[in-house]
Amino acid sequence: MTLASPHLDILKEELCSLHAELIRWGLVAWTSGNVSARVPGADLMVIKPSGVSYEDLTPDSMIVTDLDGNVVDGTRSPSSDTSAHAYVYRHLPEVGGVVHTHSPYATAWAAVGEPIPCAITAMGDEFGDDIPVGPFARIGDHSIGEGIVATLKGHRSPAVLMRQHGVFTIGKDAKAAVKAAVMCEDVARTVHLARQLGPVARLGQTDIDKLYDRYQNVYGQHPDEHNGATA
Amino acid sequence: MTLASPHLDILKEELCSLHAELIRWGLVAWTSGNVSARVPGADLMVIKPSGVSYEDLTPDSMIVTDLDGNVVDGTRSPSSDTSAHAYVYRHLPEVGGVVHTHSPYATAWAAVGEPIPCAITAMGDEFGDDIPVGPFARIGDHSIGEGIVATLKGHRSPAVLMRQHGVFTIGKDAKAAVKAAVMCEDVARTVHLARQLGPVARLGQTDIDKLYDRYQNVYGQHPDEHNGATA
Amino acid sequence: MTLASPHLDILKEELCSLHAELIRWGLVAWTSGNVSARVPGADLMVIKPSGVSYEDLTPDSMIVTDLDGNVVDGTRSPSSDTSAHAYVYRHLPEVGGVVHTHSPYATAWAAVGEPIPCAITAMGDEFGDDIPVGPFARIGDHSIGEGIVATLKGHRSPAVLMRQHGVFTIGKDAKAAVKAAVMCEDVARTVHLARQLGPVARLGQTDIDKLYDRYQNVYGQHPDEHNGATA
Amino acid sequence: MTLASPHLDILKEELCSLHAELIRWGLVAWTSGNVSARVPGADLMVIKPSGVSYEDLTPDSMIVTDLDGNVVDGTRSPSSDTSAHAYVYRHLPEVGGVVHTHSPYATAWAAVGEPIPCAITAMGDEFGDDIPVGPFARIGDHSIGEGIVATLKGHRSPAVLMRQHGVFTIGKDAKAAVKAAVMCEDVARTVHLARQLGPVARLGQTDIDKLYDRYQNVYGQHPDEHNGATA
Repeated sequence: MTLASPHLDILKEELCSLHAELIRWGLVAWTSGNVSARVPGADLMVIKPSGVSYEDLTPDSMIVTDLDGNVVDGTRSPSSDTSAHAYVYRHLPEVGGVVHTHSPYATAWAAVGEPIPCAITAMGDEFGDDIPVGPFARIGDHSIGEGIVATLKGHRSPAVLMRQHGVFTIGKDAKAAVKAAVMCEDVARTVHLARQLGPVARLGQTDIDKLYDRYQNVYGQHPDEHNGATA
Repeated sequence: MTLASPHLDILKEELCSLHAELIRWGLVAWTSGNVSARVPGADLMVIKPSGVSYEDLTPDSMIVTDLDGNVVDGTRSPSSDTSAHAYVYRHLPEVGGVVHTHSPYATAWAAVGEPIPCAITAMGDEFGDDIPVGPFARIGDHSIGEGIVATLKGHRSPAVLMRQHGVFTIGKDAKAAVKAAVMCEDVARTVHLARQLGPVARLGQTDIDKLYDRYQNVYGQHPDEHNGATA
Repeated sequence: MTLASPHLDILKEELCSLHAELIRWGLVAWTSGNVSARVPGADLMVIKPSGVSYEDLTPDSMIVTDLDGNVVDGTRSPSSDTSAHAYVYRHLPEVGGVVHTHSPYATAWAAVGEPIPCAITAMGDEFGDDIPVGPFARIGDHSIGEGIVATLKGHRSPAVLMRQHGVFTIGKDAKAAVKAAVMCEDVARTVHLARQLGPVARLGQTDIDKLYDRYQNVYGQHPDEHNGATA
Repeated sequence: MTLASPHLDILKEELCSLHAELIRWGLVAWTSGNVSARVPGADLMVIKPSGVSYEDLTPDSMIVTDLDGNVVDGTRSPSSDTSAHAYVYRHLPEVGGVVHTHSPYATAWAAVGEPIPCAITAMGDEFGDDIPVGPFARIGDHSIGEGIVATLKGHRSPAVLMRQHGVFTIGKDAKAAVKAAVMCEDVARTVHLARQLGPVARLGQTDIDKLYDRYQNVYGQHPDEHNGATA
């Protein structure tokens, strides 16, 4: 695979349009969110350039790095969250996409360091459990990546609330990770609103298990199209 | 009636554009909502395909099933909520449209299992009562459909809050059911916001009765155009 | 003036585009809001037809009535709130426009029957006082109109929160009434959000008086352009 | 430099499109916000005309004033907040742009007179501290400008919550000030939502210092492109 391969071009285009989904679903303000994708069959990833506004993003402006975050292709600096994304790809080989946002309701839960209880069926479907809280970690070294991996490894949830920071989600590809980010904010909001009305009860564990199992194995058009909610 | 009839084509087009209303009014995230319509004069219904995003919906992608949820026409799987929709059509012959969403404010009420009190005139008009809570029911068999029908049969409200799940609405046709879903979220939000300010009082029963009677019988352009609110 | 006069055509066009502002600023769901305008120099008003969705409104679909609400021109029924609008025009000769919405935050205050305290300078500017609560009144006779007039006559505020119902605003013309509806929802939201944080203090009366006086007399481009906020 | 210089034309165009950002990010209702820019190399500023709606703004409608707020170029009155903007430019020579809004969550904090605690990493990055509260000051003389300058001079935060009024932000240019206004509302909302869930803890001072230092000095493409969040 060369860096000018058609395959990589398609990945850059996809990544560019997935950033527009972050705006569309209200997950980001100004430039505060990013999506990356593993390059299939290579120890490479594609990620948003740093500090560029979403409307100025083009497929060509996307940055290719190795899995240590070193730029391999691209004329700009990669997102300042690159080392966290890279850490995830190095340690979770099944992950093909990573998303980071400060979406407001999910970040509110992160700010108080409380997991979102699995209180509605949509959470059972998508997350199979409470959405967990990861450690506080300062940007700039591996500690964010470590916190994500330590929290999500072996966990059903594709989303982690990094304490007093924001959300990271993972998926088999970038689209699945974006979907997890959209659904995470959606349930974070619903359960937040419910809490204002009264006590929120977690679903029974058997119900959660059955919802999760059905959704991951039955739902959707094909095994590789697990990208809808309960529609 | 054949499955390629012009009548069915119009129904598919209508259903496709009604899904766009779910997005427009903020009722759904990603693919988490669906609309169906009974095919007039046949034991058939049309429904959204499963796990397909709203912008990819076309009239041709809509699925026709019988009232047991078996696919009669269409190349994809129908919505995973098909059996619930079908159950409603089998048991409530006057219903021509069904909508399911996880709209955030209404689902917050569902999460805590509390009916929305009929505290504002718009609720008297549209729902004629509190918006009731249905049982918790797991997807996959008839229990969701049973819960909807058991709650709404004989009730003025066209909307039910399925406990720890979301909203189902019914109507004489799909547009009326979509309108009920839009109004349900609207009043769920208003009454939620009111609750943050102080105690919310239900309207007097006589007022509710008179509001409901006038709205169902006088409002709008014609008896068959009961699709506005108090405008 | 004939009913086909160019003057009336312009008024209908203006009214049509002002209904789009209700959508744009999030004041209405489905068809639940309406705007009317007095026809200058005639005992007539123009108002939205009943139960018609906003995207289907055209200048030609607007209804002309006399100030008792009888249709003078138009093929549809006028808004079911026509008698309230007409009552206002009959009793407040300086009013040239009336708006009715169920905008969510303002209606939340109406639902608990609490005035919005004049706690921020934007309220001093626009409303010159708390936004008052009017009586509960059922649609169908003059009681809504009476409640609006009784509350707003001699009051600085162009907005009234009709108890357990919604908002009515007035203005020298329809645009001013729409602006008042937009600003009413804006301050209803801000003060609601403030209340979640802690006690909200009313501004001092001297400050309110000076803000109101300056805004009504100095602000804007010309005396007849009082249609901006503190921009 | 003449007032018809190409340089000034570009500044007016930029200012016009930055007002659209206020709408896009939900910071303003009707006409209630404004952006200004210092004219580089001159004792002049460009600002929004008073009471003009955002869709009617054109580069040509922008007003040029001296730093005492006297109109030098333009056919309309400048924003009623002109004296506050001018005061900031006179007393803070490093400031090239000023924004004023009544954005809802930030104004809610202003209404109760409480600083927004620096509880999430995005606040450490952008604001380097709590977002401070300035004094209550009535429009019409220098007191608003004085309050802004007294609060922000020597403070890391580019945003001040003027008590019971709204937000003013500053930046090296108008775009940076708009970014600060967008981020201020974003964190005001997140921390507000967090407060509904439970107690919100300020980040440790060392963490805040390191976040702020890295963001101001490392983040982004170039030293002069500090206009992204942690993307």
